[in-house]
Amino acid sequence: MTPSNRIPPTPSIQRLPSYLRVLREARARGERSASAAKIAEELGRQSVQVRKDLAITGVLGRPKVGFKIDELIGAIQSFLGWDQKTTAYLFGVGNLGTAILNYPGFVANGLEIVEVFDANPKLIGKKICGRTVRAPYEAPTLAREFREAFGKSVDMGIVTAPGAAAQSVADVLVESEIHAVWNFAPVTLDLPKSVLCENVKLSESFAVLTRRMKEREEEKAGGKKSR
Amino acid sequence: MTPSNRIPPTPSIQRLPSYLRVLREARARGERSASAAKIAEELGRQSVQVRKDLAITGVLGRPKVGFKIDELIGAIQSFLGWDQKTTAYLFGVGNLGTAILNYPGFVANGLEIVEVFDANPKLIGKKICGRTVRAPYEAPTLAREFREAFGKSVDMGIVTAPGAAAQSVADVLVESEIHAVWNFAPVTLDLPKSVLCENVKLSESFAVLTRRMKEREEEKAGGKKSR
Repeated sequence: MTPSNRIPPTPSIQRLPSYLRVLREARARGERSASAAKIAEELGRQSVQVRKDLAITGVLGRPKVGFKIDELIGAIQSFLGWDQKTTAYLFGVGNLGTAILNYPGFVANGLEIVEVFDANPKLIGKKICGRTVRAPYEAPTLAREFREAFGKSVDMGIVTAPGAAAQSVADVLVESEIHAVWNFAPVTLDLPKSVLCENVKLSESFAVLTRRMKEREEEKAGGKKSR
Repeated sequence: MTPSNRIPPTPSIQRLPSYLRVLREARARGERSASAAKIAEELGRQSVQVRKDLAITGVLGRPKVGFKIDELIGAIQSFLGWDQKTTAYLFGVGNLGTAILNYPGFVANGLEIVEVFDANPKLIGKKICGRTVRAPYEAPTLAREFREAFGKSVDMGIVTAPGAAAQSVADVLVESEIHAVWNFAPVTLDLPKSVLCENVKLSESFAVLTRRMKEREEEKAGGKKSR
């Protein structure tokens, strides 16, 4: 069974970037091999989990030697598609959009934001991080020109528009023949089944943190037994 | 068994904010009750999951009637600690920090950022969203004054500093007697066990999306059977 014959579990995929980071740091220190136990220790995780997660990339560690760092980095990058460019349209150049535009970590992993859009007339035509802000209605035409020039669609649409504007942005994305959406707006987008969508919900992690804080408070206050 | 007697599972907690959003929208439309099936449908989920998730708040729906919307909103807010203020120090007022400062969703759920800090000397003393930017070294003193004034520590530290600066910010947080960290920096912070930490890893969701895109490409290219 090759790794691509079955769909790898989402939590394993989610953990790969942290392994990649640890491995790159080790390589930068001049190290050439790493064991699952060592990676696990650095991240405060169980080595059995690390071993299972890394197995989905198809690279196997060898007893005593562990993984060859170069090989494993290459395998993770290839598995995630981070060894190739991912072209993207960014919709919304407010603070969050600009943060994504400036974040070096995404560029290092292949993200190339080729156009930026915003519905705010005050921003249209202005330059942000070297890119001219366009009006969303221009996207389908620009996307067609992109397809004609490169023989493929823009890979991804990034939505950082406010909740109320997000669906109209999503409609523009679909019209632009973009088949993957990275959605930061706190709404569920209505998209055709053929379009992949990954939602970033900051409120999810805020909820987990505030709930755990509350549990700790209750524990302290009541001396209740919590498992 | 009351809800607080056992630790509710993280995925259930993560889904609560989306239920809250759907319920608030329903209330705004003038609705008074909602069924798990209806909530599930709006979010494209299974109603059995919605029912299980909502059960952790201690509120039970009634056959045919479903949940009373007001009661359920109150229960979710209380369960998450969103019915009370969560005071926070924000470290890093770059684009991401400013996005959090401006995001109305967090304020609506109790987040109150009481001080903002940045290590950049050009920003210190400047006003951002009505708050004067302070130097990080001032935090422990300000936090002590806060404790003296309000009889409790600042609840949360939000870290949006770059990776290389994040650990020194974390040390300042600990020195400021803050016991919960919401970390947006792409590093694992070294913190005492008594400090709660929730990491927001944008690269996790980027990885899931690019991997799913790659799987779809492979499917198209090779006509391979994928499950």
